[in-house]
Amino acid sequence: MKKYAIILAAGKGTRMKTDLPKCAYPLLKKPMIVYIIENLTKSQSVDEIITVVGHKKEVIKNILNSRVSYADQDQQLGTGHAVLMAKDLVKEEGYSIILPGDMPLIDDLVIKEAMAYHESTRNDLTVVSTFVDEPDGYGRIIMKNEQLQAIVEEKDASEQEKEIKEINTGIYIVDNQMLFEGLNLISDNNAQHEYYLTDIVKVFKSQKKRISTFILKKPFKAMGINDLYALSQAEAILRHNINKEIMRSGVAMINPDTITIGDNVVIEENVTISPNCYITGNSHIKKNTFIGPSTEIHNSIIGENVKIQHSLIFNSEVKDNTTVGPFAHLRDGAIIGTKNRIGNFVEIKKTITGDNFKASHLAYLGDAEVGNNVNFGCGSITVNYDGTNKYKTLIGDDVFVGCNANLIAPIQIEDNSTIAAGSTLNKNVPKDSLAIARSYQVNKENYFKNKSKSNGKK
Amino acid sequence: MKKYAIILAAGKGTRMKTDLPKCAYPLLKKPMIVYIIENLTKSQSVDEIITVVGHKKEVIKNILNSRVSYADQDQQLGTGHAVLMAKDLVKEEGYSIILPGDMPLIDDLVIKEAMAYHESTRNDLTVVSTFVDEPDGYGRIIMKNEQLQAIVEEKDASEQEKEIKEINTGIYIVDNQMLFEGLNLISDNNAQHEYYLTDIVKVFKSQKKRISTFILKKPFKAMGINDLYALSQAEAILRHNINKEIMRSGVAMINPDTITIGDNVVIEENVTISPNCYITGNSHIKKNTFIGPSTEIHNSIIGENVKIQHSLIFNSEVKDNTTVGPFAHLRDGAIIGTKNRIGNFVEIKKTITGDNFKASHLAYLGDAEVGNNVNFGCGSITVNYDGTNKYKTLIGDDVFVGCNANLIAPIQIEDNSTIAAGSTLNKNVPKDSLAIARSYQVNKENYFKNKSKSNGKK
Amino acid sequence: MKKYAIILAAGKGTRMKTDLPKCAYPLLKKPMIVYIIENLTKSQSVDEIITVVGHKKEVIKNILNSRVSYADQDQQLGTGHAVLMAKDLVKEEGYSIILPGDMPLIDDLVIKEAMAYHESTRNDLTVVSTFVDEPDGYGRIIMKNEQLQAIVEEKDASEQEKEIKEINTGIYIVDNQMLFEGLNLISDNNAQHEYYLTDIVKVFKSQKKRISTFILKKPFKAMGINDLYALSQAEAILRHNINKEIMRSGVAMINPDTITIGDNVVIEENVTISPNCYITGNSHIKKNTFIGPSTEIHNSIIGENVKIQHSLIFNSEVKDNTTVGPFAHLRDGAIIGTKNRIGNFVEIKKTITGDNFKASHLAYLGDAEVGNNVNFGCGSITVNYDGTNKYKTLIGDDVFVGCNANLIAPIQIEDNSTIAAGSTLNKNVPKDSLAIARSYQVNKENYFKNKSKSNGKK
Repeated sequence: MKKYAIILAAGKGTRMKTDLPKCAYPLLKKPMIVYIIENLTKSQSVDEIITVVGHKKEVIKNILNSRVSYADQDQQLGTGHAVLMAKDLVKEEGYSIILPGDMPLIDDLVIKEAMAYHESTRNDLTVVSTFVDEPDGYGRIIMKNEQLQAIVEEKDASEQEKEIKEINTGIYIVDNQMLFEGLNLISDNNAQHEYYLTDIVKVFKSQKKRISTFILKKPFKAMGINDLYALSQAEAILRHNINKEIMRSGVAMINPDTITIGDNVVIEENVTISPNCYITGNSHIKKNTFIGPSTEIHNSIIGENVKIQHSLIFNSEVKDNTTVGPFAHLRDGAIIGTKNRIGNFVEIKKTITGDNFKASHLAYLGDAEVGNNVNFGCGSITVNYDGTNKYKTLIGDDVFVGCNANLIAPIQIEDNSTIAAGSTLNKNVPKDSLAIARSYQVNKENYFKNKSKSNGKK
Repeated sequence: MKKYAIILAAGKGTRMKTDLPKCAYPLLKKPMIVYIIENLTKSQSVDEIITVVGHKKEVIKNILNSRVSYADQDQQLGTGHAVLMAKDLVKEEGYSIILPGDMPLIDDLVIKEAMAYHESTRNDLTVVSTFVDEPDGYGRIIMKNEQLQAIVEEKDASEQEKEIKEINTGIYIVDNQMLFEGLNLISDNNAQHEYYLTDIVKVFKSQKKRISTFILKKPFKAMGINDLYALSQAEAILRHNINKEIMRSGVAMINPDTITIGDNVVIEENVTISPNCYITGNSHIKKNTFIGPSTEIHNSIIGENVKIQHSLIFNSEVKDNTTVGPFAHLRDGAIIGTKNRIGNFVEIKKTITGDNFKASHLAYLGDAEVGNNVNFGCGSITVNYDGTNKYKTLIGDDVFVGCNANLIAPIQIEDNSTIAAGSTLNKNVPKDSLAIARSYQVNKENYFKNKSKSNGKK
Repeated sequence: MKKYAIILAAGKGTRMKTDLPKCAYPLLKKPMIVYIIENLTKSQSVDEIITVVGHKKEVIKNILNSRVSYADQDQQLGTGHAVLMAKDLVKEEGYSIILPGDMPLIDDLVIKEAMAYHESTRNDLTVVSTFVDEPDGYGRIIMKNEQLQAIVEEKDASEQEKEIKEINTGIYIVDNQMLFEGLNLISDNNAQHEYYLTDIVKVFKSQKKRISTFILKKPFKAMGINDLYALSQAEAILRHNINKEIMRSGVAMINPDTITIGDNVVIEENVTISPNCYITGNSHIKKNTFIGPSTEIHNSIIGENVKIQHSLIFNSEVKDNTTVGPFAHLRDGAIIGTKNRIGNFVEIKKTITGDNFKASHLAYLGDAEVGNNVNFGCGSITVNYDGTNKYKTLIGDDVFVGCNANLIAPIQIEDNSTIAAGSTLNKNVPKDSLAIARSYQVNKENYFKNKSKSNGKK
């Protein structure tokens, strides 16, 4: 007996007013639908996931790739019609959980418990319901003798029914064979001319099937995202939960409401995160490290005992005992060694540094490979671009690059050399050399003795 | 029949403890009183606005200019006295809405509905009231047969009256002629020796005039700002409402509680605002653009499909398909063309750039005009200041400025020229030229073979 | 009669999961236990403070130094045992307040009132209690005829007792002599084999001593910090209270929830703090100053009428009428004069500047002393480091340093001199001189007339 998940991801999400299909919209930089896929996987409760796609289907397919099977719903004729599109993919006996693709807060525990409930009750259909204080607008659950009698939509509800606070979440668990038989009996005889999945309840009821509800204890988990304000509300819950869990695991956060951390970020014990940090993607912060304030880290690995302030790190790695910032930028592909000091107004891109490297101020390193014990002076630059191509800069061990130097790549500075401050180099420097390219200083004395200063402009 | 608004803006606001007169104090960078003027205008419910000014009246007048008429209250003898000062300006029959100048959250809808209510009820006086859970300190509304009987101040209220939760907001709508007749009958026989506008109710009552209340449904809208903590509470409401409306219109905000957006900012669909952004003034962000995190924008126009990170943009314009930042600063009067790349640690001031301009790192452009397809190298500078005056730098099309170059203005670099890295130029460069000003590189080999490195300091 | 405070600070705080002993953990950069010491001192209610230390006692001792006496609890055998360790230090008659070291929100007023209550009631023991809505997990207070009968722990409580909402905070005030006699009668006959201080109640009760409760009106003040999430909750309360008090004193905060200000920061009237600021340590911001957004200030003095944006200031001073930032960094030991302009991408370290100093862009000053009326050009650098040592740069009055200049320290630039842009100087410059060190400009005309541009790479 095989268990399927059918995710409804064909909709456009008109009220989102964005170019993306709704379920592809990011929540803390991860598409909403990925939360559902990840939580289904984590729940270990389904054997196969089928995603019903329609509007801009290629966007959803590019996100999920081969993690799921796809059913195409080329015309959006309602949720019942959407599920029907999955029929050919549901080949075996068993049952399916049907999930709207815009409910990113449904977690693995809920899925696991609801599936277990369905199996233990031997229901034909389990409707996942929840209790809310303000049920206006939702389908109300009518129960009798612990069996679900009907789901009454707002517009059809009597005054008495409107008082009911148990509502339909839109999540169903249902026997595969009965599902598709039932869907064929649903009509589109309504104002929108759509086939509503909810009508499966009426059909099953007429067939005297067993239907009850699994009650979701925390209603927010079934929050559907219809516009970007709702998205921000879901994000607030998610963010708070992520931060709470991280803090409880031994991470200090200062003013955590100003700290935004993605779902897949790993932070080890005894780390401190200062205000206004934004850490996303597959970032990993190792123990005893200080991050922030006002630091953004995306898809990067930060070692132990590192200090990063007011900086931006993208797709890079910072090894142990290094300090970064303030106002540093590891742009992409920076691999920063141990005991480095990357100071203020320093940008590093596609560059590997050895241990004990220092670029303390106002420097740019791009497309460089740097050895151990190198000092890269204030204002110095790897001139890696000629307007057409990029070239590499190679710097050996124990090199001292003076201030405001230009290293015009391709160039190699060999071990134990020094570059004099203010030099522009376009030739390689052999090891143990002093390289210098500058003019002698001339002091024109008494130049301003009887002159206005602004004549001295140079 | 003419409709007036009389705004009470003469007070000092002692508890604000600031230099500004209270009503001039900014809320999200816009003076409180401007909210009232804008909402009155938007309501289309009054023909003329009279502002009663007193303490530091010139500050208020500088803000509102000719948008309103002014009545001077040179001595602050109470709110009743303040309204009386407007007498000469209220020349025609009709009625007036009297508003405290420190209620920035009174919106156009409230004004419109209250004015319509006053007119439809044919009241002589309409008191705008509201219901609050904790009425302590407010004047309580005593009603009888749908007519207002009295407003009882806290100190005069019986225990029974103290239970009343309907309170006076301090907003009145009143027949012009009756108003000024009535004000002449108010006395200053009280502890503060002030003429209280509230006493108009007593006068009207003794004259058997028709008085009822217009009930404000959302009490926060009548929040008066007495100190800077109250200001922050009003700001929180305003901010939340602004953000909610923007999100619902198709703008994604990540951690919106950390995002502060002013009242007059326009943001188009499919824009994403990342955490910790601060956008104010008459800024306009066009569609498909990414802003933030940690970006400040004031009075600037940002084009479509632009990306701005960790940057500061003041009184500038960024055209379509350009990226700015991180850590860039468009200081004032920067007009950045399409498909530009303004990278990290770059400052641009009073400068116009063409299309396909790049200043990717550590550069300063001031008082420059730049053509199309120009690369401005890392560390390069327009030397626009000689200690006394500022000069212009003109750069043509297809120019490549190498790294760490100094262009000493006034200077013109003509089309299709290249400036060698490390050059300091003080003469114009004709088109198609290579300009160079630097020393040859000398490698002193084996210089450090048997020496300590620190001898090599240069 | 002498009054003691006994602070229990020997615990490890396992659930904090950090290296520090719990009471040493910082809350807004100040160790938790310091709040308690400061509030005890401020309350003027105790003559001597004894701190019981154990786990990593040297950390606590380094923080508190000679501000308290220390009792060593080398084995952690429970709170009763901890207090017993203080016996030898409590030499005189009188009474003691016993406080857990992890309750940083207990303020001076509570201490003062509880001590006064104890004295006025002539109690032998006063238990500080409070009422909470959800008492689960706390010891319940059983009262009878205004005398405390027992404290019943959760696990021993009857269903009826579990309904009691008055709980034990863990703070006691007790007669010195009776305390230590009583502690000798407590046993460790329990699951954890610990001596619980709470058991003193049982002992006293059996001895018919007078015991009642002092009820803390705001339960959050007795919040004990057990993990880093609880720490963040205490911080939120503290932060909100600090901000509220500062705003009421005449400081405007824009989006105050994003502003994090430490307990010892002093901010004068008519200051505005913009979003995302973080101000800590013994910082002092003087009147009429604008701070932020996104500014971090630690242990620094900021003068009157200063403007600081997007900057980082550590252990430095900024005098009146100066602007700093955006993106400036006063690293350590910067003393910035009046009417200075420290602009973007400028770092200053261990440097004193005179009045009217300007370093407007992309500059580094380290180990420098600068006179009055100096302009330090864009891209210019004090070359203070040769890889081994740091050297000083001395700049006189009325000096103009052109752009992208390198001043190789040790160096002295005397009064009224100018350094030409692009010069690297390694010799002193006498007064009134023009110093220049650069190559002549050569324009190779028509160089690119028939060539591809990328051949011109330099």
